[in-house]
Amino acid sequence: MSHPQTTFRQTTFTAPSLLRTRRATVSRTTVHAQLSQLRANGQYDCFKLGWHPIYDDRSRWPAPLHLFWDSDVAKWIEGACYFLVEEYDVEVDAAVRELVAMIRGAQHEDGYLNVHFSVVEPGKRWTNIRDMHEMYNAGHLIEAALAHRQYYRNDLLMGPLEKYISHIHRRFGPGEGQIRAYPGHPEIELALLRCHAATGNTEAYDLARFFLEERGNPTGQEGKHYYDWEMERRDEPRWKRPNSWPMDRSYWYCQAHAPILEQASVEGHAVRAMYLLTAAADLLNTSRESSGSTAPVRPLTAAPAWLAALRRLWSSTVDKKMYLTGGVGAVAQWEGFGIDYFLPQGPDEGGCYAETCASVGVMMLAERLLHADGPEPDGRYADVMELCLYNNVMTAMSADGKAFTYENQLASCEAARSEREDWFVCACCPPNVTRLFGSLGGYLWDYGGGSGVGEEGKKGVFVNVHLYTSAEVKFPVDGAEVTFSQKSNWPWEGNMLFQLKGADSLSATIRLRIPAWAIQHGHVLTPTPPTGTATLEKGGYLRLDPSYTASNPVFSLDVGGAGFAPRYIAPHPYTNQRTLSLARGPIVYCVEDADHPWEENHFKDVGIKRGTAVEEAWRVDEKSGEGYFALKTTGWERSPEVLARGGDGVERELVFVPFYFRSNRGGKGQMRVGLRDDGR
Amino acid sequence: MSHPQTTFRQTTFTAPSLLRTRRATVSRTTVHAQLSQLRANGQYDCFKLGWHPIYDDRSRWPAPLHLFWDSDVAKWIEGACYFLVEEYDVEVDAAVRELVAMIRGAQHEDGYLNVHFSVVEPGKRWTNIRDMHEMYNAGHLIEAALAHRQYYRNDLLMGPLEKYISHIHRRFGPGEGQIRAYPGHPEIELALLRCHAATGNTEAYDLARFFLEERGNPTGQEGKHYYDWEMERRDEPRWKRPNSWPMDRSYWYCQAHAPILEQASVEGHAVRAMYLLTAAADLLNTSRESSGSTAPVRPLTAAPAWLAALRRLWSSTVDKKMYLTGGVGAVAQWEGFGIDYFLPQGPDEGGCYAETCASVGVMMLAERLLHADGPEPDGRYADVMELCLYNNVMTAMSADGKAFTYENQLASCEAARSEREDWFVCACCPPNVTRLFGSLGGYLWDYGGGSGVGEEGKKGVFVNVHLYTSAEVKFPVDGAEVTFSQKSNWPWEGNMLFQLKGADSLSATIRLRIPAWAIQHGHVLTPTPPTGTATLEKGGYLRLDPSYTASNPVFSLDVGGAGFAPRYIAPHPYTNQRTLSLARGPIVYCVEDADHPWEENHFKDVGIKRGTAVEEAWRVDEKSGEGYFALKTTGWERSPEVLARGGDGVERELVFVPFYFRSNRGGKGQMRVGLRDDGR
Repeated sequence: MSHPQTTFRQTTFTAPSLLRTRRATVSRTTVHAQLSQLRANGQYDCFKLGWHPIYDDRSRWPAPLHLFWDSDVAKWIEGACYFLVEEYDVEVDAAVRELVAMIRGAQHEDGYLNVHFSVVEPGKRWTNIRDMHEMYNAGHLIEAALAHRQYYRNDLLMGPLEKYISHIHRRFGPGEGQIRAYPGHPEIELALLRCHAATGNTEAYDLARFFLEERGNPTGQEGKHYYDWEMERRDEPRWKRPNSWPMDRSYWYCQAHAPILEQASVEGHAVRAMYLLTAAADLLNTSRESSGSTAPVRPLTAAPAWLAALRRLWSSTVDKKMYLTGGVGAVAQWEGFGIDYFLPQGPDEGGCYAETCASVGVMMLAERLLHADGPEPDGRYADVMELCLYNNVMTAMSADGKAFTYENQLASCEAARSEREDWFVCACCPPNVTRLFGSLGGYLWDYGGGSGVGEEGKKGVFVNVHLYTSAEVKFPVDGAEVTFSQKSNWPWEGNMLFQLKGADSLSATIRLRIPAWAIQHGHVLTPTPPTGTATLEKGGYLRLDPSYTASNPVFSLDVGGAGFAPRYIAPHPYTNQRTLSLARGPIVYCVEDADHPWEENHFKDVGIKRGTAVEEAWRVDEKSGEGYFALKTTGWERSPEVLARGGDGVERELVFVPFYFRSNRGGKGQMRVGLRDDGR
Repeated sequence: MSHPQTTFRQTTFTAPSLLRTRRATVSRTTVHAQLSQLRANGQYDCFKLGWHPIYDDRSRWPAPLHLFWDSDVAKWIEGACYFLVEEYDVEVDAAVRELVAMIRGAQHEDGYLNVHFSVVEPGKRWTNIRDMHEMYNAGHLIEAALAHRQYYRNDLLMGPLEKYISHIHRRFGPGEGQIRAYPGHPEIELALLRCHAATGNTEAYDLARFFLEERGNPTGQEGKHYYDWEMERRDEPRWKRPNSWPMDRSYWYCQAHAPILEQASVEGHAVRAMYLLTAAADLLNTSRESSGSTAPVRPLTAAPAWLAALRRLWSSTVDKKMYLTGGVGAVAQWEGFGIDYFLPQGPDEGGCYAETCASVGVMMLAERLLHADGPEPDGRYADVMELCLYNNVMTAMSADGKAFTYENQLASCEAARSEREDWFVCACCPPNVTRLFGSLGGYLWDYGGGSGVGEEGKKGVFVNVHLYTSAEVKFPVDGAEVTFSQKSNWPWEGNMLFQLKGADSLSATIRLRIPAWAIQHGHVLTPTPPTGTATLEKGGYLRLDPSYTASNPVFSLDVGGAGFAPRYIAPHPYTNQRTLSLARGPIVYCVEDADHPWEENHFKDVGIKRGTAVEEAWRVDEKSGEGYFALKTTGWERSPEVLARGGDGVERELVFVPFYFRSNRGGKGQMRVGLRDDGR
């Protein structure tokens, strides 16, 4: 199997596009800005293992403010290595080298590697695996090492991390004298499985599998739930609990309330859940031969049960607990999932967290499930992946690449305006955006040599296109280099031009995703395919048979026209959110006070009617130079008093901008995605 | 000042009415059923101070299951004494006498009186005032003693309680060597102020005032918040906290996050909040001369600040945090208030607790505020009092008086069907219903000798009528006995006949409440008043001047007709509950599966349209013999899929029954108050 973090190097973004603009901004601005933050806040030097004043802060329990510093550094290294591939930068290169040297110097003789437990609480290693994030930090360091190894082609970082993996592997597992723990914050599992895929490290695989299979075991350690056992060892009372836990033993917070295979719905901290399920999908994928991959295969007897659990928990996530923007996690207290259909738009309406990292996690999970679920890709996964990318993820960074959001509520309020910050005390989200944009090429498509031999004795090759933009991928098949390219003005227009090169001696099958929002409007393939050579598969992909691609190495697909017309969208009726929003293609829109200076109440009183004409206008933002389609329609402002007496209210011309573009133009930070649904 | 628990004896329910039916049921059935429960579950004997197996249960912290047993007994005694006034019952009388003897026997030499800390943890008295309900239990015992003293005219129970008050008064207060604590569960404050009003006990007043003024002091005890200080004394870590607290130091749970006068909104456990504010209103009322009362007056310099706080917190409660049924408390975890306008209809939609006791508390608070706020009564208080009575409170008991609810959600779901229980482990609600119905006469009206001398040199007398039914009150003014009676078919019809007797030598002013839901439809007073003799005050009461009452000792008021037509009601738009409900007079309606056997999804998919004709039909329930107006209209059942495609769905004939009458006729326990609002 392959991972986007590995394969992205084969893809080049070839022409101006929104994705290429963002990637260039991250490469030229964000990577540097985040490095400055690390230097300014203390993370940069933390592996020197000196004392930092923040270590004296005891106001937070269980996790002190600096507990994630290892991961902050690791995620920056990972993202930086992705962008070094694209564009060499001497300052970034030097910083990576220096950080790696410091990390190497911080490793203990026995392989242990963690700042907090080296400096602040040296005697307490592995005593609170539930809360203290040692494995989480280790996982991000492993991911950093993988990216570092890939770019630098040496083991200066991978070596220490493999030693750390051995250390953990000795201590934790099902064997005699081992401890049956698993991390409170899942992350290391996906890192270990990526490590196994990249290096063949079997300790990494065994450890990840143990963590995944053991999680939630009610009697794992001496007949007890591991977290109960561990808590008793720390002599902590049951009702002493993190503030993220509403009740005692809220193990659902970290998806440890039941074994994964028995979990009926997705629960708890959304980022943890998505990382965990991504690893579960990796475990499943590792059990299968994957075309075009040399990664080791490891059998998994329970594969059908894992697939069933993944489908169930995916459905729980996207069908019942996801916002229209691809955000997940309605509840701030545990940064995670509420009950089914509980999706208030903002904190003053009862919820909405929609953390950036969680939607990055949904994208990772979706990408894995495109491989895991069925012989043909299922467009539902790619639809959600695209939804998250262009909306809840992209909204998390300003157009200038310097400011970020952590939470992405669909409606602002006085206590939570629509605005971004330069950095966060718990700085997980900004470097996650960097990592994602760095490896984005790996999410666009799957490809490789097909198994078996196709028509006319030719060896097979395939490309499944999940996301549209302007890009080119080159990959070897059977000694030849195949090049496949796409060119479009996505996400603004639905006409894509494709070209396949170097596949003359191959039997090429191409699949092109028709997004669910476009599928009812039809599509046009040019040249027109002879009957039977282009088939819309039930997963929503248009499959072009080798007979078509052989005759037509250049072809185009148009899902535009009506498919790209602005459309009204609404949440599920059981959400009790009787709102309407506007979308166009994959982009979900919002209103901002920047376009409506009269607004003073966060658009709480503004309604729109389904069916009212929507006009679109191409706009170029003065400050950033970015263009986008703005949408215009008519709405009605009605106060509660006017509504109560059935009055007409004030007619308002409304301008909608992409949700991802919010908070780039000043203003009062008033914003809303879903406006009151005033019927037809 | 006077209290309904004292004055109810002057009122007699004179003719068949819904209220008289319920009172008779409680008297003949409920009081006995609850006594049986006390005997069966162990409470009855608990003051013998023997061991009970439940005391071994250590599964709950901080409050073990039996912690409220003292109050269970006390509340039963209180309610029983109210009904003994009405109808002597030998078994009830004997049980009260025996319980009082046991309570007397359980008191310690120093006055201390508490089962748990006498039997289970004898060394830990007063070490956890935040959680352990000693004061709460004491408060209910004081209320029991007041009712007992009133009926039995002896001090067999009041004596020990006054000794206990002295004990508490010695220990807690602002003096040297005293502890500046206040109860985690407010209740004793209102009990102490009632005790002071009834007996003149100054220790009771001083203690209540200290508790009210000290509450929420951030530096009260040795420079610390009392609960912080106490927690440190118990050597408990800050993050060890009750399951009702979402976060550490959630002192808002028990309204101790700030001094009462500084609290901006009503927060936390709803019953505690209502009991606390009732006491605050009592404190204010105690500072004023009250006509017709001989209770002692105690000056209060900060009276204007207390009135402002009461108005603010009342408005927060009823304008932003109250359900259409008069229920308060949207959040189950802390049995209390959510953020403003957060009012989901059921647990599967994110909330709805609406505890019975909380609405009993709202009624108590409303009754106090009718006296506290302004020289003329403000009908908003009485409107809410009536709303709570006929809906959220009355729904808590079955028509046969044997089964109860604790929570009163507006919509059922699979995990919380619409059904009642015989009893609860924490049995606060059933005896609260008993106490309320027992003292209900005291809520109907205020009356007394007016201050000063009126027209023609006559001494004044007034009656302010808050609730309509068929009843008569007799009270002395200036040596004469005044009798005032009302007769009506309330809550079904709006025509009331009044008669004033024995006031010939007095100058009588009568005020009749025009409910807010009727006021726009006008009213008819008969005989027609000459100009200027009947004035609608801004508080919503029709004031009849002495010149009118002198000429017309018998008169009638009609607020019926259009005022009693079925009407559509809807929650505030900011609740995001786009629902419609039906109401008629003071009664809020619901749909039940008993009338709609096709229903399988708790009416989630059923919508109604404002303006659709509603037919009313008098029904007599076969089992209970009770009559009520059912309402019939047409609705549309539309699944989410049908809604998504804009389909028409299935037209359904819908039958609405009073919310208070739900769950009396079997069925599947499917019920809903607010149906999807399908527009006009």
